[in-house]
Amino acid sequence: MTEIAILVYDRITALDAVGPYEVLQRLPEARIRWVAKEPGPVRSDEGKLTLMAEDRLEDVTRPDIVLVPGGFGTDALLEDRRVLDWLRQSHETSRWTTSVCTGSLLLAAAGILKGLRATTHWAQLERLADFGAEPTPERVVFQGKVVTAAGVSAGIDMGLALAAREGSDLLAQAIQLGIEYDPQPPFDAGSPQKAPAEVVEAVRQRLEAARA
Amino acid sequence: MTEIAILVYDRITALDAVGPYEVLQRLPEARIRWVAKEPGPVRSDEGKLTLMAEDRLEDVTRPDIVLVPGGFGTDALLEDRRVLDWLRQSHETSRWTTSVCTGSLLLAAAGILKGLRATTHWAQLERLADFGAEPTPERVVFQGKVVTAAGVSAGIDMGLALAAREGSDLLAQAIQLGIEYDPQPPFDAGSPQKAPAEVVEAVRQRLEAARA
Repeated sequence: MTEIAILVYDRITALDAVGPYEVLQRLPEARIRWVAKEPGPVRSDEGKLTLMAEDRLEDVTRPDIVLVPGGFGTDALLEDRRVLDWLRQSHETSRWTTSVCTGSLLLAAAGILKGLRATTHWAQLERLADFGAEPTPERVVFQGKVVTAAGVSAGIDMGLALAAREGSDLLAQAIQLGIEYDPQPPFDAGSPQKAPAEVVEAVRQRLEAARA
Repeated sequence: MTEIAILVYDRITALDAVGPYEVLQRLPEARIRWVAKEPGPVRSDEGKLTLMAEDRLEDVTRPDIVLVPGGFGTDALLEDRRVLDWLRQSHETSRWTTSVCTGSLLLAAAGILKGLRATTHWAQLERLADFGAEPTPERVVFQGKVVTAAGVSAGIDMGLALAAREGSDLLAQAIQLGIEYDPQPPFDAGSPQKAPAEVVEAVRQRLEAARA
């Protein structure tokens, strides 16, 4: 069995969690644990989606894979001792310790990214340096068993990269085909290098406002 | 306000719903309605994720956008009068009636795809013809206000195409950048045309077994 603990909390970005969940739940004998400070409903960003957390942090002590999704709610946890202790403790025995989007800020706050190259949502990238990590604008960054992915949708790519390492290239390809992940976005604006400058500025301002 | 009704039910594939949700919730003044036969928890495919449905079908009568995700649970609803009536009725006044993956089988069973080109998960594509639709292996198919997307992850692409039409290209690009959707899958195996033949066969067999 492969136990996959996904940390959830209020103001999470749902796709950060559900993208890699959809990949990793297809690993052979995957057991998904939706872990939170308290079991119960968890609401996304602005409350438009409710996921259920099923396990209390302290009840999931040795997951094989730790996954920390991002969202505006990360800021409220950056000094949360229970969450940071759980991350540090799980990381001691995990096979992979991973994040999507601003989830990496929590790994960083727990000291797990010190001296490592790491990524997060492009608009928050520089914040990683505050915790001693080396920000890098790659989509998926492997540093030993620590894996960070860029914003929101990057968790799907990370999930497939993990599936290949946990199983095989054929397994990852089967999962990719199962979720028909043959992306064809109608625009090529998915990174600040590719989007029109006015779009980058507008999104940066909107995210800052939403964070505050 | 743009009211977006997402139909949920047991054995749904979570990413079918959460992918386009993550795009469409970013439309200006988007109101998401998680609609089910009865409000309450809804469990994904094999029960590894729980989403909350918040509204009863009959309480959401005139959504602007109807979104029907897929999953193994669609088969159990193909003759469900309440669900099919709700789809037909919502479709009368909707601006867009949409599906992801096998969600299109429910639109088809409701008679909404008759004579239209439509898509679904590649492994189920031929079933659309049973309901008088014309199966087409494209990723996102627009037929007037009826829009169908291919398997699971295709809902993200569909969401962005809808955002462009509901708002503007700049809005869709801003959403794409917000979710950093700059896909970089580690393999090129996301369609049966691209995946190795042995992978296609293995996935087809696994899906048939899971459906049964």
